[in-house]
This record gives sequence, structure tokens and C-alpha cells, in this order.
Amino acid sequence: MAELQRRKLYDITAPNRSTGIIGGQSSNILNWDDGRFPWAYPLYKNMLRNFWIPDEVNMAGDVKQWPQLSEDERDTFRKIIGLLAFLDSVQTDYSGKAAAYLTDSSLSALMSVLSFQEVVHNQSYSYVLSSLVPKAEQDAIFEYWRDLPLLRDRNDFIANGYAAFTKDPTPQTFLESIVYDVILEGLFFYCGFAFFYNMARNGKMLGTNTMIRFINRDEELHVRLFTQIFRELLAEHPELDTAENREFVRETFRRAAELEIAWGRHIVGDRFDGITAGELDAYVRFMANKRVHELGIDRPFDGYRRNNLRWIKAYEDNDAGKTDFFESRVTAYKKASDNGFDEL
Amino acid sequence: MAELQRRKLYDITAPNRSTGIIGGQSSNILNWDDGRFPWAYPLYKNMLRNFWIPDEVNMAGDVKQWPQLSEDERDTFRKIIGLLAFLDSVQTDYSGKAAAYLTDSSLSALMSVLSFQEVVHNQSYSYVLSSLVPKAEQDAIFEYWRDLPLLRDRNDFIANGYAAFTKDPTPQTFLESIVYDVILEGLFFYCGFAFFYNMARNGKMLGTNTMIRFINRDEELHVRLFTQIFRELLAEHPELDTAENREFVRETFRRAAELEIAWGRHIVGDRFDGITAGELDAYVRFMANKRVHELGIDRPFDGYRRNNLRWIKAYEDNDAGKTDFFESRVTAYKKASDNGFDEL
Repeated sequence: MAELQRRKLYDITAPNRSTGIIGGQSSNILNWDDGRFPWAYPLYKNMLRNFWIPDEVNMAGDVKQWPQLSEDERDTFRKIIGLLAFLDSVQTDYSGKAAAYLTDSSLSALMSVLSFQEVVHNQSYSYVLSSLVPKAEQDAIFEYWRDLPLLRDRNDFIANGYAAFTKDPTPQTFLESIVYDVILEGLFFYCGFAFFYNMARNGKMLGTNTMIRFINRDEELHVRLFTQIFRELLAEHPELDTAENREFVRETFRRAAELEIAWGRHIVGDRFDGITAGELDAYVRFMANKRVHELGIDRPFDGYRRNNLRWIKAYEDNDAGKTDFFESRVTAYKKASDNGFDEL
Repeated sequence: MAELQRRKLYDITAPNRSTGIIGGQSSNILNWDDGRFPWAYPLYKNMLRNFWIPDEVNMAGDVKQWPQLSEDERDTFRKIIGLLAFLDSVQTDYSGKAAAYLTDSSLSALMSVLSFQEVVHNQSYSYVLSSLVPKAEQDAIFEYWRDLPLLRDRNDFIANGYAAFTKDPTPQTFLESIVYDVILEGLFFYCGFAFFYNMARNGKMLGTNTMIRFINRDEELHVRLFTQIFRELLAEHPELDTAENREFVRETFRRAAELEIAWGRHIVGDRFDGITAGELDAYVRFMANKRVHELGIDRPFDGYRRNNLRWIKAYEDNDAGKTDFFESRVTAYKKASDNGFDEL
């Protein structure tokens, strides 16, 4: 398959409104009101509205609770932060690499917003850890990704998927890389999120939980962005819309779900009040089904159509608060950090 | 000179804290508290604190004033917006291309923030124009960069500087591209800014001016970021710190100042109350001197040590309001858009 060309710095002979999602003509001049994809500008505005600053979340309560947590709780907490730090770092990088081949300036702009938000997420991990543990321990947690075998398996799974694209950028490998992206942002975070939300249900670590909710809200929009790109790619390149590729998506999500389930059993298992390993397994399969369905493809798992962890919905409700920035956002924000999760 | 290598997605054998600004080892995992450059995190936090949303600036007053402006004022207004739309689009792209070679995850993260802010600037140009002129006219203004000869000269000047780096990425071409960047962000915006601030002095187009001030504030931090990268590059690669390169910086800024002066005479000249062509020429040379001095190099122009347009200081004072986000930013923001510039 023909190699993809990187977008030019600018192209005086090409129109501002691009002629294709990849391999198209584009001047590279961004006019938000003259775009190829009508969903791009509303999505951009939603992403902007999500803006938050980690170190403005009050960690005083978490600092007080941290020594009172069980050793198991602290261990899992550390491992999840270690995982997230890796995933968001990689994601910052991948989004830039993917953006280089998008020949539509509004989509590459959305990738810039996405990449920026991943950077903010990484700040939150440093901020959480620097609030709770000594510097040497913080640095050690940022090394977990190298040594924990279950993390290595997951990381290699994503990284190999991305590398196939970066080494040989074609429409096919680009499509495949998007599937790995949706797994990273739309599945591999979710056992971690569930653990934190379960803590919040028990009134624990509400500052950290506020940040996790903001991260979750961002990631939902990132998944939406990549899902849209996936769908536009198939629409513009019908030669990619094959039974083989649809099965590739399902099969890759099945493998990803196995990895996430193994990880969930390792970090959560049956050790914490309020959540069981079996429940978490089913939740992972539900999320995998949800994501594949969002990509416009038949679900990989029979059943698992409903979120079995009903209580999670209160935390991951990402459409709440999508109104005026100064009218409601500040209040919503203050509410979450001052009063914890009582009102959810 | 040896070709630069792109940063890897991640590198399990490399440390989180990078070993070099370019050509170094880096795992690519971002821990803001374990960085190579002590200035990076404070700069990141300042950049975050600058956050703003264009379409929350009230344009009602500008809409009312627009038909009352002189044809000359409207013509210059349109040309400057056309110019800025081009420059910020190119800048979004260049920052991604430069980031790919920075082997320090905190610096590539800063580039993501920068790139994100350029995207927001582009939104503001679309927003300003969509408030003031019909869609067809807006689209036409986004085409100015193709046809106005003086714009073409400036654009080619920057683009050729960037292309030398993207076609043949070496430490030397990277260094040169930074100089072009500082010209783009630190010099080529400034006749445009001066025109808008002069309007504000006369009580005109205060909504647009609010946005220009926010853009100016962002660009000041972008210049600071690239200036720091330039200085670190020379420190880590003393073989680049030559008399030849220092003269290259001065000479490139001299040529850039000529282009900016020609542009300033074209768009402003002696046609507007409150500002003369001679004053603007001197201001451009002052800004060129300022930027080269910030790069740690002897100034290109004799004299021109002080800002002759003293009244501009009120508008471009970028250290105001650098306190707590929710405490002061919202208020400062509201003040600027509700009351215009009376209080400056």
C-alpha cells in the first residue's frame, strides 16, 4: 500500500478546506469556520471547556487519609498511577506522530489539544505523588512501567501496534494504530478508574478522585475524536472497510480485554470492599463492546451490553457541566473538590 | 553534521530524566518533578495560567463599531488578521516538527502546550471575523497570505528557514530554525499588535483587542520557551556557539526587521492618528534588539535600546495577573472585556 505523506508546513496551491483526511490537499491554514468535518469544531469547543489545572485541586484530605489506607490500597494506588503516567506519556507522543499524517488542519489541531491534555494528565500524576510520598518514592513509581511484567505486556501490545504505523505509515497501518489508540484511551484506563471510583464511594482519596474524573472526562472526548477519525477514514477509503479489518478490530479488542482483565485481577482482584474480580472482568468486556460498537463494528463479546458497575456512572458522567465556562464550570469544580462526592 | 534522530515513542533502556536536549537518551516518560531543566515546570505552569477561550470575549461593541471605522482601518484590520491566521497555523505545525527531535519529555510537552495555544489563537481569528463580516469575506481574508506580495515575502522568509531544518535536521539547522521561530513569534506579530493597541487607545474594537492581548501574552511565553531552548542548545553543544552563528542571528534579525518595517509601512504608514511610520520603524528595530539580546547575543542595531512606543507597555504587560487561576484570572478577564481598556 502506498506510503502516507506527511502534511506540509504550508501548501500555497492547496485549498484551506482540505480534500481528504489522509493523502489529501490542504494549505494547512486553519479556519475553524471553513472545515471539512462538521463535528470538528463542536468537539474542539467541548475539549476546551474541559480545561482544568491539577495543582488547584486540594489534596489536603488525601494527604491525611494516605497513611490510614491499607497497604493493599496504597500498593494498588501506586501501581495505577505508575501505569497512567506511562500511558499518557506515550499518548502525548503518538498523537503528534499521528497528527503529522492528517491532511486536514482542523484534525491536526484537535490532536494538538489532545496532546496538551495528556501533558496536563501527566502533571496530575506528579502532583498526586508529590503530595503523598517522598520524592524518591515518586521517582520509583515512575519506573514501574519498566519492571512490572503485566504492565510490560500491555505496554508492548500498544507500542507494537503504534510502531507498525510509525515504521511503515500506510492507510492500513494508520487504521490499525487508531484501534490501538482507542484501546489505550478507551479501555486500558478503566480498571484503574474503577478502583479509584470505588475508593470515592467509600469516601477515600477524594482529591485524587477529582483529578481522575477530569482525566476520564478528557479521555472520553479523545476516544470520540479517534472514533470519528476511524469512521471518516473508512468512509473516505472504502477499500479499508473490509471483513478482515472488522475482524481485526474485534480480535484486537478481545486480546486487549484479556490483558486488561489480567491487570484488573492483579491490581484489584477480590481484595477490596465494594468490587469483585468477576464484576471487574465483566465491566472490561462491557467497555470493549462499547468501544467497538462506537467504531461502528459488531461487538466482540456476546452479552455484556450494559454497564454492570452501575455506580460508576455517577463518576464518569461526562456530559454533565457542558455549559458556559465561567457560569458553571468553576462552581462544578469547586463543588467536587470542596464537598467530595456526596452530591453525585 | 550528523542527522538528528527523532525521539522514540518510548525507550525502556533510557532514563526518565533525559541526558540531552537533542540527541540525548530519554525514556520519554514525563515526570514533571524529575526534569533536566529547572525552568521547564514553572514555564509550563505560567502557560497553563494563560488559558483563555476566544468565544467568551464579548464582541458586541466591536460589531457596533465596525461599520463606523474608516475604510483604511477596516482594510488594515483585515490584513493583520489574515497575516496572523497564517503565522499561527504555520506555528502549530512547526512546533510539532521541532518537538519530534527534542529528546527531553518536558520540552516536548511544552511544545504541545505551545501548539495548543496556537490552535486557540486561530479560533480567535475565525471568531473575530465571523462576528464582523459575512462568511464569504471571512474565507477571503483567510486567503490573503497567498496573494499579498509583502505577506508572501515574509512567509517565504520563515518557511525557507523552517524547511532547511525539516529537510535536513541537524543541530545546526535546528538552531537556525529556532531563530526563525523567535522572529515569527517575537517580531512578525508586533506591527499588527501595535495597530490594534493604537485602536484601543482610541477606544476602538476593544473585544478584538482583548484577544490580541491574550495572544500577545501567550506569544511572550512562547518566545521565552524557544529562547531557553536556544540557550540550552548552545550550552550543551558549544561547537554551535561560534562567531559565525552569532552573526547569523544578527543578520537574520536585520533582514527580518526590514521585512517587518516594509509590512508596517504598508499596513500602518502615516495614515492613522496616534502612530507614525517612523515610530513603528523604530519600534521594530527595538523589538529585534530585544529578542537578539534575549537570545544572549549582541544586538543587531546600534541604539534602539528603549521601547519608543511607551503607551504599548500597558497592553503588553504580560506579567500582570500571574496569580491564582480562580482567584484573579476570571476577574481580570471580565474587567478587560466589560470595561475595555480604561483601567490600563
